[in-house]
Amino acid sequence: MQGFPPPPDKLIMQPESNYFSFPKLRWTVCHIRELLPTKNISKGLSGPTLFTYQLDKNIDSLTFKPINSNKDMTWKESLDANYTDGILIIHKGKIIYEKQSGCLNEFGKHAAMSMTKSVVGLLAEILIAEERLNENELVKNIIPELSASGFGNATVRQVMDMTTNLTYSEDYSDPKADIWTYSIAASPLPKPKGYDGPVGYYEYLQTVKSSGKHGDAFGYRTINTDVLGWIVARVAKQSIADLFSNKIWQKIGAEQDAYITVDSKGVPFSGGGLSAGLRDLGRFGLMVLNKGNLNGNQIIPAAAVENIMRGGDKAAFEKAGYSTLAGGSYKSMWWLFHNDSKAFAARGVYGQTIYIDPEAEMVLVRFASYPTAKNAKIDPTSLPAYEALSQYLRSGR
Amino acid sequence: MQGFPPPPDKLIMQPESNYFSFPKLRWTVCHIRELLPTKNISKGLSGPTLFTYQLDKNIDSLTFKPINSNKDMTWKESLDANYTDGILIIHKGKIIYEKQSGCLNEFGKHAAMSMTKSVVGLLAEILIAEERLNENELVKNIIPELSASGFGNATVRQVMDMTTNLTYSEDYSDPKADIWTYSIAASPLPKPKGYDGPVGYYEYLQTVKSSGKHGDAFGYRTINTDVLGWIVARVAKQSIADLFSNKIWQKIGAEQDAYITVDSKGVPFSGGGLSAGLRDLGRFGLMVLNKGNLNGNQIIPAAAVENIMRGGDKAAFEKAGYSTLAGGSYKSMWWLFHNDSKAFAARGVYGQTIYIDPEAEMVLVRFASYPTAKNAKIDPTSLPAYEALSQYLRSGR
Repeated sequence: MQGFPPPPDKLIMQPESNYFSFPKLRWTVCHIRELLPTKNISKGLSGPTLFTYQLDKNIDSLTFKPINSNKDMTWKESLDANYTDGILIIHKGKIIYEKQSGCLNEFGKHAAMSMTKSVVGLLAEILIAEERLNENELVKNIIPELSASGFGNATVRQVMDMTTNLTYSEDYSDPKADIWTYSIAASPLPKPKGYDGPVGYYEYLQTVKSSGKHGDAFGYRTINTDVLGWIVARVAKQSIADLFSNKIWQKIGAEQDAYITVDSKGVPFSGGGLSAGLRDLGRFGLMVLNKGNLNGNQIIPAAAVENIMRGGDKAAFEKAGYSTLAGGSYKSMWWLFHNDSKAFAARGVYGQTIYIDPEAEMVLVRFASYPTAKNAKIDPTSLPAYEALSQYLRSGR
Repeated sequence: MQGFPPPPDKLIMQPESNYFSFPKLRWTVCHIRELLPTKNISKGLSGPTLFTYQLDKNIDSLTFKPINSNKDMTWKESLDANYTDGILIIHKGKIIYEKQSGCLNEFGKHAAMSMTKSVVGLLAEILIAEERLNENELVKNIIPELSASGFGNATVRQVMDMTTNLTYSEDYSDPKADIWTYSIAASPLPKPKGYDGPVGYYEYLQTVKSSGKHGDAFGYRTINTDVLGWIVARVAKQSIADLFSNKIWQKIGAEQDAYITVDSKGVPFSGGGLSAGLRDLGRFGLMVLNKGNLNGNQIIPAAAVENIMRGGDKAAFEKAGYSTLAGGSYKSMWWLFHNDSKAFAARGVYGQTIYIDPEAEMVLVRFASYPTAKNAKIDPTSLPAYEALSQYLRSGR
């Protein structure tokens, strides 16, 4: 979508189902709110807390070997290879590298995709730290509407770590796959004529069945986050958008409001609806790196972050067979690499990342619009770059 | 819509056509973006310019006689009578009265409805003052796509003052009225099955026919503003949302971004799509009162405002027969009362007003969710109240 108004061959329209297809995706990721109803996540009314800049010109020439490659790639080359829309590196609290390109500029917001899950996971950890939520409680005792569903007998922790065992297919090539029913239920657009299925996230989640014992294996299913969002909203007595604003976004000195897509009943999409500015996610990531502290203020309980950093069940994670994340784990909707820098990350399709590296005192935020959704494709030119950067920063530059 | 999530009987859903019906309206006016796709109007990244407060406790007990009534009403009583969601009074640059209620709070934004038109009219006046737009130019020479339409031979000024003569029915009781075709074209939702009519504002506007000579009579038709928005966007080479942000919203020290609804092609709704915060519209109104100057900065050319203040064609206006606005005129999408305080206003259905009173050095912003759309119903308990307030302020308090 270029120019105003764009010519017909450059037009990306709602309603159409393919605005996430490449190359339309490259525009869509910065313009979700122009295609879908959204709810505001207020930063509050005061001005931003500004970053100090100490740009490091050496970073562009750092080299690394992509996974399964013997050929060196420079950091700078990796930006184009990864269809990077925005990248920010914070080291010891200062911005040392920043680029906004593609559809993004500093007045813009970019789709966070499944990084939204990590926000919801952190909100749940905050409620746990505040002793308002018990991770061992069964879901049905918090959300009675889910009693008969596959989630009813799962614990909050199993939902948080996605070790539920559910009958749920995300096989996009199967027109009867559950993901399609979920998509129709979740869409704020009118339902197909004669449709009598579930409307909205909450109605859909009640239809999901269990397929066995919970707790044994990690299975990455977005519906877990939608249940967790429901739990968080029920316990906090407000939507996750308002809770996120009240607990975090209003307290980190954000430059811009964020926003989240909603279903036809106004329920935010916990599984992937967030859009936010690059530096604002940097502030969020820096607060996480600092265990809830930012600019001298303890914004959230340190225990909420510490619980995530302890990591999840590696054996359960291994069963899912993520080749680029071998040895890792998943805890409270965050990905842990269990590498020597103790890095962990929020991750979303098409290359979204908040990469937090405690040993290097580094936070990296990357927005991207990679042609394919799965991060297994973009990890080879990303994760080794982050590790090279971590080495460089830890070496004292 | 109360609680989270709201119970079924309190639910206001998209897609449904009646979210502007009372009492749903009372929620909807603060939550347009949760129902429709919208485009951001950035305030920029810096903090707000704060108002000085000098609250006047006498205002609540001011009395006035509603139009066609012999019984006194107090200012305070008028707030409930008018279903007021937010009201702000600025006198000599300071806030002397402020209330946010109903669905509104200071983190919220409220639908401006047709006050959007006044923003677009002001943008056009800015382009005229900058000599980028000629008010005597024919529309077809700026937008060739409109050559064959009823707008083609109208001048920019006739469009700006709504003295075009168009075949266009807004009779909501007639299912074949033009307003319905317009609504379907403008909606970002999927079209009815088999629909082969216009898609989006721009395609629709090309279908509108003339019904006679332009320039003789005022006829309030929203489609004029959509044409003006197209003209403004074409001349400025950017959407009216971006132009408004660049020219005004980033320069008034706003607290919050504003936003505007868009059609399925991303074209903003010039005729009524804006939502904004109460105090931010106060900043906007104060800048207009001060002929483009705010906090010592000349933000827009004084001539842009002076042109509006000169007023429109009273004889053309009289033909439209507005009983509560007798003696007034309409100029560049602003309503002029031609009263002794030289007041003029942006006005929108359900009671939205930015009332600018030069003699009293007053700006009043009111958001409301009055049960019926037409302001003729709410004017009787509003306009005399504003005049009583003006008298009070001019008397030196």
